[in-house]
Amino acid sequence: MDTPVTNASDVPAAPEQDEHVRTRLLNAAVHVFDRKGYASAAVREIAELAGVTKPALYYHFGSKEGVLMAILTQARLQFTQALEQAVVRTGSARDRITALCEDVYGLFEQNVPVARVAHAVLFGPPEMAPPFDLTAFELLFRQAIERIAADGQATGEFRPGSTTDIALAVMGIIEGCNERQLHQAFDPVGVAGVRRLLDLLFDGVTSAQRA
Amino acid sequence: MDTPVTNASDVPAAPEQDEHVRTRLLNAAVHVFDRKGYASAAVREIAELAGVTKPALYYHFGSKEGVLMAILTQARLQFTQALEQAVVRTGSARDRITALCEDVYGLFEQNVPVARVAHAVLFGPPEMAPPFDLTAFELLFRQAIERIAADGQATGEFRPGSTTDIALAVMGIIEGCNERQLHQAFDPVGVAGVRRLLDLLFDGVTSAQRA
Repeated sequence: MDTPVTNASDVPAAPEQDEHVRTRLLNAAVHVFDRKGYASAAVREIAELAGVTKPALYYHFGSKEGVLMAILTQARLQFTQALEQAVVRTGSARDRITALCEDVYGLFEQNVPVARVAHAVLFGPPEMAPPFDLTAFELLFRQAIERIAADGQATGEFRPGSTTDIALAVMGIIEGCNERQLHQAFDPVGVAGVRRLLDLLFDGVTSAQRA
Repeated sequence: MDTPVTNASDVPAAPEQDEHVRTRLLNAAVHVFDRKGYASAAVREIAELAGVTKPALYYHFGSKEGVLMAILTQARLQFTQALEQAVVRTGSARDRITALCEDVYGLFEQNVPVARVAHAVLFGPPEMAPPFDLTAFELLFRQAIERIAADGQATGEFRPGSTTDIALAVMGIIEGCNERQLHQAFDPVGVAGVRRLLDLLFDGVTSAQRA
């Protein structure tokens, strides 16, 4: 018994294989965190689902918290890229905000399990939360809409007023649409629904604007 | 040792004392569920915080799940009462929807820990959830707004269109305001903020309504 027992997945050889194991672990972790909750998830279960050993997980991420941090960091990067694209787009402020919201809705739709994990961490017990500032999503989203709304006010397209209020109203509507994707009991509104609800906000519900 | 050990809080005497122990247990449970999460909360810790023994908790609620069910049932009752009041109120549809949203915001504000527990259960891992239909809140809220919006369309106050869309837009805005109360990193918008965001939805963000 002098020869140590080795496992191919513990000893990553080529960088591309490393990347493959990493991705398998991230996908497995999202699945387990989503089903069991981050606090109750076991490293052993994540490794098993990924088809690797526990040491492979520790090699790549250091800890269970490290896996969650990697998942959230990746999500924030995708989100930030969508916001950056939205701010530099041309067109009316209305169309730019609508396009941004469609992008954010689509990103959420493609990543529902990750979104649910992030949501559970943000609103879950603070004792369990990792040192990741999830409120950064809110700030980035709000600032992007505020910038576009200010452009809309500068051209007279939007009525004068607080751009923060416009951003909060838009975000409320989009987050409402996104949260309906998190729970199977709700019918998703879909991207066409997102557009309809934003049209209500842009044009108003009432027949005549109040002075 | 023939005499059984009794504990005053285990053997409720007068109904008013029963009610007092029950309330203490509910308050303690909300606190522990909120801090630790429902899944990680221990019956022992809830009983200790309430200053009673574990059997007293089992006597009143049967189980940890029973305590959570009692908390959520009470919250749904308060919510339903607010909605019923809103539907029978008189005035413009705009003012009735605004008053309803102010009530819902205020109810949430007075019960932030309960709201956070309910939120965590609704969006948390389904394995941990109790057999309580939290989506009922959504349905009741939506139907109340749809009814008022239909009144507003009947008088010409609101433009024609889907009352469900109006309800989803209103609910998105209110839930956005409510969720900001759930996390200490966000500034609460306050009841004046709720009114400002609803005014944006009623009047529209743009200078001219699109045909």
